[in-house]
Amino acid sequence: MSAILRVGIAGLGTVGCGVVTLLQENRDIIHRRSGTDIIVTAISARDKNKKRDIKISLDDIKWHDDPADMAADPDVDLVVEVIGGEDGAAKILVENALNHHKPVVTANKALLAHHGGMLAKLSDEKQSPLYYEAAIAGGIPIVKSLREGLAGNQIRSIAGILNGTCNYILSEMERTGASFEEVLTQAQALGYAEANPSFDVDGIDAAHKLSLLSALAFGVEPNFDAIEINGIREISAEDIQSAQTLGYKIRLLGQAEYKPDSKSSGTYKLHQKVSPVLVPKDHILAGVTGVLNAVYICGDYIGNYISVGAGAGQKATASAVVADIVDYACGATNRPVFSVPAKDLTRAKPAATEALNLRYYVRLNVLDRPGILADLSNILKNHNVSIETLIQLGRDPDQPVGIILTTH
Amino acid sequence: MSAILRVGIAGLGTVGCGVVTLLQENRDIIHRRSGTDIIVTAISARDKNKKRDIKISLDDIKWHDDPADMAADPDVDLVVEVIGGEDGAAKILVENALNHHKPVVTANKALLAHHGGMLAKLSDEKQSPLYYEAAIAGGIPIVKSLREGLAGNQIRSIAGILNGTCNYILSEMERTGASFEEVLTQAQALGYAEANPSFDVDGIDAAHKLSLLSALAFGVEPNFDAIEINGIREISAEDIQSAQTLGYKIRLLGQAEYKPDSKSSGTYKLHQKVSPVLVPKDHILAGVTGVLNAVYICGDYIGNYISVGAGAGQKATASAVVADIVDYACGATNRPVFSVPAKDLTRAKPAATEALNLRYYVRLNVLDRPGILADLSNILKNHNVSIETLIQLGRDPDQPVGIILTTH
Repeated sequence: MSAILRVGIAGLGTVGCGVVTLLQENRDIIHRRSGTDIIVTAISARDKNKKRDIKISLDDIKWHDDPADMAADPDVDLVVEVIGGEDGAAKILVENALNHHKPVVTANKALLAHHGGMLAKLSDEKQSPLYYEAAIAGGIPIVKSLREGLAGNQIRSIAGILNGTCNYILSEMERTGASFEEVLTQAQALGYAEANPSFDVDGIDAAHKLSLLSALAFGVEPNFDAIEINGIREISAEDIQSAQTLGYKIRLLGQAEYKPDSKSSGTYKLHQKVSPVLVPKDHILAGVTGVLNAVYICGDYIGNYISVGAGAGQKATASAVVADIVDYACGATNRPVFSVPAKDLTRAKPAATEALNLRYYVRLNVLDRPGILADLSNILKNHNVSIETLIQLGRDPDQPVGIILTTH
Repeated sequence: MSAILRVGIAGLGTVGCGVVTLLQENRDIIHRRSGTDIIVTAISARDKNKKRDIKISLDDIKWHDDPADMAADPDVDLVVEVIGGEDGAAKILVENALNHHKPVVTANKALLAHHGGMLAKLSDEKQSPLYYEAAIAGGIPIVKSLREGLAGNQIRSIAGILNGTCNYILSEMERTGASFEEVLTQAQALGYAEANPSFDVDGIDAAHKLSLLSALAFGVEPNFDAIEINGIREISAEDIQSAQTLGYKIRLLGQAEYKPDSKSSGTYKLHQKVSPVLVPKDHILAGVTGVLNAVYICGDYIGNYISVGAGAGQKATASAVVADIVDYACGATNRPVFSVPAKDLTRAKPAATEALNLRYYVRLNVLDRPGILADLSNILKNHNVSIETLIQLGRDPDQPVGIILTTH
C-alpha cells in the first residue's frame, strides 16, 4: 500500500511554514506510519516573494493568489487552513472546501468558536471531515484524547491553562515579583506576546479554545458568547504575593461544567468561564509554568485526566496539524466534528456564575479608620458571604490598609 | 446510520465487569458518538455462577465455557480479551480471533510484551485490527496520543510512572516516613497491592508497559527481555528521607531512549530501563502521587508532552477498553499495531546502561574509622566517578556512619 495524499496549504506564516517543514523532514516516518506519501502540491499566501524559512522552492508548487481557489483545485486532496481569523478568507476557504467535498484541517480556533456549529453541519452534510487538533492547546493531542480516547465517558467538567502568553506572564510575575506591565513588555520582546496583547491577556483566545472543549466534552454547539471572560490585566504583584502567602498560585483557567438544571428536569446548564483562579500550590496545574498549556478533564469512568504540553509555537502546532492529516490518510473520517453528529448538538442554557457557589479571593485597600473591619464584616454578612481567611497587610503610615480575604 | 456491533467479552473479573457496566450505563452517549449500538452478546469466564457486581442477567447472553470458542461465534463481531496472562487461554483466544478475521481489544500487557511482534504480524496479515489502549497506563489514552496524536514526530525518549502500586507505596513512604514493608502491608489491605506483590514491586508490570511504549514510539518489536529491571523493595525510609534532603523524590520510572549507535552508522541503540529514580521535587513527575500513572514523551516537534491519570482500576481500565471498541465502530481500522506495519518493526540492539552516563544516588553504611572518607574518595576516583553531593548523616555512637552521595 502506498497511496499519495496531495495537500494544499492556505497561509504561509509561522504555522504554515512549520507544516511544510515537518512534512518534509519527517516524510519517511510519516509514510511508514500512514501508508501514505503526503506531499504539498499547492500553496496560497498573500505574498509569494516574502522571505520564508522553508527549504522547498515555491516554484515547484502550484500557487493560488486566492486561497478560496484551493477548494476546487483538482491537484489538492486535502486543504490545510492556517490563515487565521474568524471571518474573511479563512471562513470562505473552509466553507468552499467542504462544499467541494474536500477534507479540511484547520488550526483556527476563532473561526470554530464563532461558526463551529454551522461548519460541523456542513461537514456532516457533505460527508467531508473537518479536523482541528491544532486549534485547542497547540500540540497537545486533546481533541483525540477527549473525543476518542475518552469516548466512553460522560464528561463532567474541564479546566485548562489554555493561553501560553498569560501563563508565561503569571509565572514570571511569580518568579520575579515584577508587575504585569513589566513582564508583558519583556514577553513582547521575546515574541511570547503580540504588540496588541488584548487577544491573549484579556482571555479571548482562551475563551475560543474553551468553547471548543465544551463542544467536544458535552455535545453542545460552540458558544463563545455564553462565556464569562476575565483576563489578567488587573492582577498586581501584590495579588501574586498574597496568593503565595495563602498557599496558592494564580493561573488563568478556562473552566466548564455541565450540570442538570435543578429547575427543569431533563435539561442541563452549561457554565463556562475564563478567569484568574487561585490554584493550591501543590496542585498539578500550579506546577505548569511558562508558555505551557494544560487540560484537566473529569469523566465518570476515567476520573481526573491531565495533559500538559506546548500550547503554541511553530513546531508544536505543526505537530497537531500533521496528526490530523495522518488521521485522514489512515481513513479516520467518521468521527463527528464535536463528538456527536451536528444535528444532535444542543444549545445549552448558560448558567449564571452565582449558581456555582464559587469561592473568591478579594483584595481591598481601605482607609485606616476605627470600625472599618466591623463595617466590612457587616457588609459581607448582609450578603450572606462567609469569610475563610482574612489577612491585614502591613503598611506605611498614612497609606491605605491592604486587606486580603478569601470567601467560603 | 445506526449500526449494531456485537461484542464478546472473555474474562469477567474486575475489568470485564467494568466494561459490561460502562457499555450499559453510557450506552446512549456511546451510541450518539459512534453511530453504533454496542451490545454485549457473548461472555466467557471460568464460573458462570460466581456472584458478580453487574446489572445484566447472564441468562440473556450467550455463554462460552471455552473462551477460544468466542473467535468463531457468528454472533460476535469483536472480541474483548480481559483474561490476562502472557500465555494460555488469552493467547489462544487472541490468535484464534485474529485468524477468524475478528478485531480484538485487549488489556493484556504481559501477552503483548512477550508476543506483540507475532500478534502484530498476524493482525496485519489477517487485516484484523488489534487494539490495546488499556494495556498501557490504564485509562490514560496514551496509545491514541502517541501513535496518532504525535504521528508526525520522531520520538526521542519516553519516561513513565507505569505502576500505580509502586507509586502509591513510594508516595506513602514519603508522606508518612514508614518503611517499605509497612506501606506494602497497608496497600495490600486497601487492595492496591496483590497478596504476591512481586509482579508490581519488582518492576515487571512496569517493564511490560515500557516494552509496548517503546514499540509504539520507536517502531521496534516489543522486547521485554531487553529491559533492565530494578524494583522498589530495596528502598528504605532512610533513602526517601535522604532524597528529600537532597531536593528529590523517588519514583519508579520506566525510561526508554532511542539513539543513533555511535559505532555503526545508520543503526540505532535502544535503551530501556525500569528503576527507582531521583526526580527533582518541583518536576511534574514528582507531583504525581498515589496510584496515578504518568507518561512523559519527548518528540522532535511536540517537545515535552506529559499525561497523567488513573493507571489502573475497574472504571479507568473499562474507559480505555471501550475507547478501543468505539474506535473500531468508527472505522478506525487502518493504524499499524505498533505505529508502523509489523514487517517494518525492527529488533533494536539493546544499549548497555553504562553507555548512558547516568547520574547515581548511593547510600553507604561505613564503619566510623579514620581515613574512611579518603578511602571511599580514592575508590571512586580510580573508577573515574565524580561526586556531585555528599552528605554524612548523624548517627548514634557505635553505629555505622551513613553516607549519601550523588554522582555526576
